[in-house]
Amino acid sequence: MRPEIFPRQCTIASALNVLGEKWSLLVVRELALNVHRFDQIAKNTGAPRDILTSRLRRLEAEGVLEKRLYQEHPPRHEYYLTEAGDELRPILLSLSQWGERWTPQKIGSRWVHSCGHEVDVVHTCEACGGEVTGLDVRLSRAFSGIA
Amino acid sequence: MRPEIFPRQCTIASALNVLGEKWSLLVVRELALNVHRFDQIAKNTGAPRDILTSRLRRLEAEGVLEKRLYQEHPPRHEYYLTEAGDELRPILLSLSQWGERWTPQKIGSRWVHSCGHEVDVVHTCEACGGEVTGLDVRLSRAFSGIA
Repeated sequence: MRPEIFPRQCTIASALNVLGEKWSLLVVRELALNVHRFDQIAKNTGAPRDILTSRLRRLEAEGVLEKRLYQEHPPRHEYYLTEAGDELRPILLSLSQWGERWTPQKIGSRWVHSCGHEVDVVHTCEACGGEVTGLDVRLSRAFSGIA
Repeated sequence: MRPEIFPRQCTIASALNVLGEKWSLLVVRELALNVHRFDQIAKNTGAPRDILTSRLRRLEAEGVLEKRLYQEHPPRHEYYLTEAGDELRPILLSLSQWGERWTPQKIGSRWVHSCGHEVDVVHTCEACGGEVTGLDVRLSRAFSGIA
C-alpha cells in the first residue's frame, strides 16, 4: 500500500481550489446568465469590487473564463465562460436545486429545459443510465485505504 | 415587472451561503467517505482546527450534518450527513469529475457505480431523459428581467 498523504489529495479539493468560495461560483452564475460586464457582475453578486477583481483574475488564470475587449479607448473588457466554465453550468443547476430544497430561501425561480419541462436534474450513470446518488459508488483507486 | 433586487436573490447563492467555501464541502466529502471523527476530518482536509470547529457548527445548524455521541465520559461526538447532506453526494461527484477534467491534479481516483462501471455522471432532465448541459435551459420566473 502506498503511503498516505495528508491532507487527502483529490480532484474535489482541486476543483474547490479553483472555485471554493461563494464569490467565484456567483461570478460563474452571472456569466452563465449572460451578464458579462464588471459593474453588473458586482451589482448582481454583491461582491466587493476588490474581491471581484481578484476572483476574475483567478478564474481567468485557471481557464474558467476569458476576457474579451469590447472598447479600445479606454480599454474595457467583458468576461465569458470558457469550455471549462460552461461545464460548471449543470453543477450550478444542481446547487440551485439543492438550495431550493434545503435552504429557507424559496425564490421561486425555475429553469426550463429545452424539452419544455421545468428542469429537475437527475444525476445518471453514463454506462447503465441509472441514477447516481453518491451512496451507490465506491472508490476504485486511491483514498481506498481510508474510505 | 416587479422591482429588481440586488444582489440577485437566488437559490444558488442560498446554497453557497451554506456551502460556499472549500472547507465546508471538504467536510461533506469526509463524511461521505465514512470519516466521522474530528481529528481525522482535520487531518484529511487540512483545515485548521478552529476553522473546522466553526464549519462543523455551521453545517449542523444548517441541517447538513448531525452529531452523535459515541463516548459519554468525556463526551465525544461523531459527525454524520443528514438527508440534506446526502443529497450533496452527486454534486461532489460532479465537482470531482470537473476537477479531473479541468485542473492540473490528476489523482487517478475513480468512482465505481453499483452497476460495476466507472462513474461518469451525466446530468439528465427528469422529464425527457435528455442531457442537461445548462446551455439548454432558460429561466421561467424571477431573474428573467436580467437574464
